[in-house]
Amino acid sequence: MDTQELAKRILNGERRALARAITLVESGRADHRAQAVALLDELAGHKRQALRIGLSGTPGVGKSTFIESFGMMLTAQGLRVAVLAVDPSSARTGGSILGDKTRMERLSRDPNAFIRPSPSQTEMGGVARRTRDAVALCEAAGFDIVLIETVGVGQSETVVAQMSDLFILLLAPAGGDELQGVKRGIMEMADIILVNKADGDLKPTAIRTCADYAGALRLLRKRPQDPEFFPKALTVSALEEDGLAKAWEEMQTLTGWRREHGHFDACRAQQARHWFEEEVRLGLLARLEKDPQMRAQLAELGQTVAAGQASVSGAAADMLRRLGAG
Amino acid sequence: MDTQELAKRILNGERRALARAITLVESGRADHRAQAVALLDELAGHKRQALRIGLSGTPGVGKSTFIESFGMMLTAQGLRVAVLAVDPSSARTGGSILGDKTRMERLSRDPNAFIRPSPSQTEMGGVARRTRDAVALCEAAGFDIVLIETVGVGQSETVVAQMSDLFILLLAPAGGDELQGVKRGIMEMADIILVNKADGDLKPTAIRTCADYAGALRLLRKRPQDPEFFPKALTVSALEEDGLAKAWEEMQTLTGWRREHGHFDACRAQQARHWFEEEVRLGLLARLEKDPQMRAQLAELGQTVAAGQASVSGAAADMLRRLGAG
Repeated sequence: MDTQELAKRILNGERRALARAITLVESGRADHRAQAVALLDELAGHKRQALRIGLSGTPGVGKSTFIESFGMMLTAQGLRVAVLAVDPSSARTGGSILGDKTRMERLSRDPNAFIRPSPSQTEMGGVARRTRDAVALCEAAGFDIVLIETVGVGQSETVVAQMSDLFILLLAPAGGDELQGVKRGIMEMADIILVNKADGDLKPTAIRTCADYAGALRLLRKRPQDPEFFPKALTVSALEEDGLAKAWEEMQTLTGWRREHGHFDACRAQQARHWFEEEVRLGLLARLEKDPQMRAQLAELGQTVAAGQASVSGAAADMLRRLGAG
Repeated sequence: MDTQELAKRILNGERRALARAITLVESGRADHRAQAVALLDELAGHKRQALRIGLSGTPGVGKSTFIESFGMMLTAQGLRVAVLAVDPSSARTGGSILGDKTRMERLSRDPNAFIRPSPSQTEMGGVARRTRDAVALCEAAGFDIVLIETVGVGQSETVVAQMSDLFILLLAPAGGDELQGVKRGIMEMADIILVNKADGDLKPTAIRTCADYAGALRLLRKRPQDPEFFPKALTVSALEEDGLAKAWEEMQTLTGWRREHGHFDACRAQQARHWFEEEVRLGLLARLEKDPQMRAQLAELGQTVAAGQASVSGAAADMLRRLGAG
């Protein structure tokens, strides 16, 4: 199938065409990459806009259950929902989303939903690019919501937040010392914190945990892109499908406010510029690193610098000289 | 004076040679840069190691008073203290540290102290490089402590944290809503939070504020490079010189633990590698941006991408093609 035909089918919302296109953007082969870029360019300017929701949560917080319940609620309202994953560890663990897909049984059978496993590779830059491309493809295919989930390994939350309109942090009820389980730097990116498992015996703990996080959020300065009372913490029960409508309402309130005040579009434009420049940077560095001799020199000089045998500026100047035109 | 002579004088601890060398690394002229790089390379491998302390605090928290009191306490113990500033806004405000230097009157007259105003330019990458180079020069000159202060504009805390062994956040006593004044993402970088102005009428508020931040810090996961009970929050009074010895003791405890467990050297090696790679990246991008035609294309394509008229991947591929070898 040629690129134009594939683009047409994606714009028609054909799932198999979408799946095929995502496989294309995930490929590491140079000829596939060229086709992928041609396809993405063919699709640029379609004006369709999904709400991109980033979702982070460590294993055990009930992320799959939440995505399924939340996704089913949205599709029941006639919304089309795509679920993508950024999981830099999936290559090592053998694909954690395989389990997710099994667990999201109902949602994966829903004609209004599309679930895509995480691309299996460990390198963060590559994962970011492929996921970002997949988001663009889902948007072109007419999805209303694109959920981008991450298990929160290393830099993945930052990457997901940089390609999302909203960043949601899903947490489990916890008492005392367990509260320390939230990684530094993640809380500060959250637009909304959802404390899951607010059901049964855990309900009182969930409510207390939620109040603790609400308190911690109040210590942070209000961001210009936020209306009053945001970011906020809420309790939900993915299991009993409780609090999900309220959570969705808050997401819409925040999104609506940002759209109204121009922050939504400004943020998207900033993200697009960020990824473009990042991509040019990565491309330039990739050229460097493709060259075995250059790669060896970069590693060697890096080692010298780390050992304190050369100055950072001196070694960098040296490296740039070797690359021609210092 | 030639580079070797300048290097010798710096290693002898001559203040005027140090000041002159810092002027050299701050210069934007290409020939000065070449001399600066030669000098830094000449000085590499001297094995002297200062404790690099990053200090962030917004205007009004009493940063100058703290630096003066803390610095005087250290010099009284026979330690040599250098104070550098990262202030990306100083070009606009006409050099905020001019005021600082006047305010740090006692410390600036201390023969064991060296205070250097912030280089007056707004571009963060350049400020980072110049400050990093200045830290290396102070270290070569035999200073025991290098205090790197920042007023916390934009990315400056991250930059300072990436060149420091310890990152200290100085805060003012505040009640209720004012606690929101701490910028997102800064708290998570702090090794020690110091609540200043724990004196007179403000003392009870300072103690309460300190307890609030201690609580917030407990919500964050313990980092592998931290012993138990770190990061921690303490109260100090720079004015009454109270709590400074305790703060210094905690800094030494943390540093000692990190040295013992290999985190100190590992962190320095990681920082050196980071700055080396960053410098190579900046150099490559600088080459790009030096070319007016390329610069125009980068801006133009960035605009197209921000407006959604081209895909990020497509525009980046386009840009890389224009730069030869896509």
